[in-house]
Parts: sequence; C-alpha cells; structure tokens
Amino acid sequence: MYKNDLYLRALKGETVERPPVWMMRQAGRYLPEFIKIREKYDFFTRCRTPELASEITVQPIRRYGMDAAILFSDILVIPQAMNIEVEMKPNFGPWLPNPIRTQKDVDNVIVPDVTVELDYVMQAIKATKELLNNEVPLIGFAGSPWTILCYCVQGQGSKNFDKAKEFCFTQPMLAHTLLQKITDTTIAYLKEKVKAGVDAVQVFDSWGGMLSPLDYQEFSWKYINQITEALKDDAPVIAFGKGCWFALEEMAKSNVSALGVDWTINPQMARKFAGDKITLQGNMDPSRLLSPPSEIKKIVTEMINNFGKDKYIVNLGHGILPNIPLDNAKAFIDAVKEYKA
Amino acid sequence: MYKNDLYLRALKGETVERPPVWMMRQAGRYLPEFIKIREKYDFFTRCRTPELASEITVQPIRRYGMDAAILFSDILVIPQAMNIEVEMKPNFGPWLPNPIRTQKDVDNVIVPDVTVELDYVMQAIKATKELLNNEVPLIGFAGSPWTILCYCVQGQGSKNFDKAKEFCFTQPMLAHTLLQKITDTTIAYLKEKVKAGVDAVQVFDSWGGMLSPLDYQEFSWKYINQITEALKDDAPVIAFGKGCWFALEEMAKSNVSALGVDWTINPQMARKFAGDKITLQGNMDPSRLLSPPSEIKKIVTEMINNFGKDKYIVNLGHGILPNIPLDNAKAFIDAVKEYKA
Repeated sequence: MYKNDLYLRALKGETVERPPVWMMRQAGRYLPEFIKIREKYDFFTRCRTPELASEITVQPIRRYGMDAAILFSDILVIPQAMNIEVEMKPNFGPWLPNPIRTQKDVDNVIVPDVTVELDYVMQAIKATKELLNNEVPLIGFAGSPWTILCYCVQGQGSKNFDKAKEFCFTQPMLAHTLLQKITDTTIAYLKEKVKAGVDAVQVFDSWGGMLSPLDYQEFSWKYINQITEALKDDAPVIAFGKGCWFALEEMAKSNVSALGVDWTINPQMARKFAGDKITLQGNMDPSRLLSPPSEIKKIVTEMINNFGKDKYIVNLGHGILPNIPLDNAKAFIDAVKEYKA
Repeated sequence: MYKNDLYLRALKGETVERPPVWMMRQAGRYLPEFIKIREKYDFFTRCRTPELASEITVQPIRRYGMDAAILFSDILVIPQAMNIEVEMKPNFGPWLPNPIRTQKDVDNVIVPDVTVELDYVMQAIKATKELLNNEVPLIGFAGSPWTILCYCVQGQGSKNFDKAKEFCFTQPMLAHTLLQKITDTTIAYLKEKVKAGVDAVQVFDSWGGMLSPLDYQEFSWKYINQITEALKDDAPVIAFGKGCWFALEEMAKSNVSALGVDWTINPQMARKFAGDKITLQGNMDPSRLLSPPSEIKKIVTEMINNFGKDKYIVNLGHGILPNIPLDNAKAFIDAVKEYKA
C-alpha cells in the first residue's frame, strides 16, 4: 500500500530492518519553508485551508524523508468546534477569552457534528494524501480530554494549570461532564479522520504528567482509554503522555498500539514498565538537538540500541524546538536511516 | 534539645508516634501576616533583614505548629553573592539582567567569602533560633547547582529552560566550570549555616526533572552529591529533586539523610525505588490543598498509610500555592497530628 510502510509495521510489532522515525512538531517552526507560509497566513487560516495544511504537512517529508507524515493542525480545533472561543496569539500561544468555570459554562459546551464543524480537517487529510502519493503513512492526532480541559479552564498555557486543577478538585462532577463531552467529540472526530484517510491516530496528553498517579487515572487515563476502545477497530492508536511514566504499566494493558514516552525515562525503564509486547515511541530530549550533529548521531544510535530496533519508533521526547538548526534535525533522521543492528 | 524533635528523629530513621510535618514554602504568600510584611518591604529587604526574615520564618509555626521551621530566604542569594545581579520583579519572578552565556561571563563569576557576603543569612538564623526558643528544629536550604545555573543562564523563569540546556549541551566545559563555582559556594554557605544554628539542610533541585536521566547525572546529581559528601559530618542533608523519580535509586545510595519526592510518584513506588532504609519526604499535590478540608484529611491519612509512619516526613510535593485557604492548610497539618497508626 505504501512505498515505505516501516511505521505501520513497527506499530504492528513486526520485525524491521531499522526502526521508523518521525519527529513531533516536524511540520513546524524550525523549517524556513514553514516560516514563509506563516508570514502570509495566520495560525487558524493555516489549519483551515486544506492547500496550506497539506503543503505544511509534506514539507518535512520532502526535506528529510521521515517515515511518516503527521497532519498539520492543532489540538484546540476540538474546543473551537465545541462552541468555545479559541485564539492563537503570536508570541503568547493559545488564548481562550471565556474560560470554562461554572455549570452554565459547561452547559454551553456542545458536542458538535464533526462532519460539518471539522470538515476542513477532513479536506486537509484528502489533500495531503494526494501530495504524499502513497510514499509514507499519514498520522492524525487529537489532544487528550484532560489536556483540552486544561486549556478550556485555564484559558491559556500555564506552568502548573492551577485553575484547571482547582476546577477538577472543587467541582469534580462538572469536570467529568466536560471531560465526557470532549471525549465524545474526540471519538467522532478521530473516526472521521480515519475515514478521510489517516493511517493511525496519536493522542497527545501534554499535561497528564501534572497529575498525581491517582488523579491521572480519574481525570485523564479513563478518557484516553475510552477513545482507545472506541477506535480499536478503526486504526492504531498511539498514546503519548508527557511525564506519565507512572502510568505506563497500566496503559500497556489497554488496546493502544504504541506508547510515546518523554526523555525523562531511560529506554530500559520504559521497556520494564510497559512490558515487552508493546511498541514504544520516543524519546530524545528536544534540547539535545542543539548538540553538534556528530553527537546527535551517537545519542540516536545509543537510543536505538537501548530500546531495541523492533517494536520501536524513533522520535523526540516532545516537539522539536523552533531554534534547531536544519543540519541537526537532518542528523537525527539520518542517524536512524544509517542504523545497522 | 528541642521540645519537639520529631523531625530530627524521623531523619535518623527512629520509630516515632506519628511522622513530623512541614510544608515547603510554609513561610509565605498564603498567610495574611506574611502579606502584611510584604506590603511594607520588598523581597530582598525581607531576606536581608534578620528581624523580618526571622519573623516570617516563625509565622507559620505560631499559626499551625508545624514540626520544623524553614528559614525564610531564597535560593538566588547564592548567585547574588557570586557577583551576578539578581532582581525579584513583582508578578514576574526572578530577573537576571546579565545572564551567563560566555567564557567571559563565567570568568566574572566569583566564589565569595560567604561569611562576609551572606552574613545577613547567618544573622537571620541566630534571630530565628531565639524566636523559636527550642520549640522545633530549623531547616536551612540552598538550590541545587543545576537549578541555580538554570536561572543564571536563562536569566528568568522558564517552561523548559531552553537557553540553560543549550549552554550545557553546546559548551559543556564552561557549564561544568560554572557548576563547580556554584557548588563550592554552596558548600561553604551551608557549612556556615550549620555553624549559625540550622539543624538540617535541604537542597532544592527544582529543575532537575527537566533533564534526561543521563544528563541529570552529569549536570545535576554529581554536584548535589559533592554537597552531600562535604556536609556529611555537619548536618543531615535532604535532597529534593522535582521530577527526579528516575534518580531515586542512585540518590538513596549516597550520604543524604532523606529524599524529597513530588506528587507524580506514588508512595509505594517511591519506597520501591529508594529502598526501605532512607527517610522520604513528601508528596501531596499542592493543588490538592484546594479540595475541601475533609477530603484533605482523607488524602493525608491515606498518604501516611502508604508511606508508613516511620522514616517519613509529611510534606507537599512542591511549595504551597498562594491561593490556599487557611483552613485547608490547617486541615493538612491537623490530619498529621491526629494520625493514629
């Protein structure tokens, strides 16, 4: 089906010549060709215009030849479709002028018809599939319900999402109502994305690691697991929980196809917690891409040796930073392609 | 020696009736009596004036009767004494107008005579000891060299301390020179504090958990361990590494008397990693103090049951937040005092 299906084979746990590689946020701010588009079009115009989103998605593939593309979009298109105003402020990040704090706020949140409200994403997927021309698979994604709640309640990025936690700890019933609405929307959204052509879906739980293990079960994993169960006959699901090392054992027992891990866990421990059966994805410190290219190659080779080449997808432990030199990103990808077991 | 020596007995691993309790940042922004002083005196005036620092230190003891006091001060008094300009901007946090980035910057950093440059801290300790009147022990503290480097290089707080990491990963020799200067200063400083009367010292590694396990060894633990070794005949050392669960096993093999853990690890895992011999300190999510008092008491009791009452110091997993109601802080302390094994 694809000229290069390494990524899908690794998700299935098949034996491969070398592990596949892609980078979180690979369609992004470190690429001059991306910056050119960003100079002309604002953030949500880029997300909503299939020609732009698809072009941005394939830019890194053209330059570096990663083994998978990931659709350019944003986790906050979901709350936007749910009747929550979301802006993206330059040099600030997400800004939600009317954060969710009360019963009335939660009542006003809708579970939308995603085929209407998020049709632009489906069109972007179709346009991307044409550009990719069966070279590599395409990944779709969504934020975890907890991570989406964080933004909806806090109203912006935060070091500790204190208002989001306050909401959950003082009004847990209300929090669960909101989380369920987000979950229902996300399930419909991801199913629609699979129909439109994505080959796998990744759920990003960027802020799960801010919760205690007990609170994580209650406010985050429960809902990610609902998504995984709902999608299990549609496409492979990859769950990436930043800082969620403590839940790896539990997560590995679910129907996810792979687990993403960040750089604060070493490969041996990640395998120990997650067991030998599941594919892992990660986990170089994104800041380590600032090291000289020769050192990057050494780190990547060591990382593959430690994870093992099978049941493994090479990636960073979080998104690539805007200030990474192009040659350094290339060294990361090339090191994987040159890998010899 | 002290009317209440629970804290020191727990550090020694002795059997206790109940575990001791204190809260990181207990002398701080959630207390109306603290806010009154803050309205009159700026941050570094409060640190530098023994009458103010000692009064602030004992305020929480008077109100709640914790089992230990911790001297009101700041980790950034160290770089200040090392010839690095440090300001504390209201509603912003630390601001270092001339961040360290080059060989010349590092050359200009001095290892000061702490008995001169930081004499005001020693005077604050003596004033505090008088106010405490042998009721409870007094803890002194310092930032870990890595955490201090983070501020010195970044120049301010940060979500990912990208410039600090860039400095370490592109100029590692220079980073180690700076880390050694900070370490030498910190050792002299903590020894002087012990002479002035503190009963134990805690090293706060607030940003250690932003490093990979390998980089943590190289840029953080190595220096904390130097401090621990240098202090081992002076006073008990407690190492608190936020997000440093991955290093607990290694840390437990050192000469530290106790290890602080944050709320993203459950008590059972913390004991498993650190072994049964070392005293642990922690670890309720500071945001959980927003729960109703009755729930706080349940969480605290459960936490003591899970850590076990011996070789354990009850604390939060990080500093108390400014918006915690007084009754909720009281519920936390009272739950420990009412604990029955």
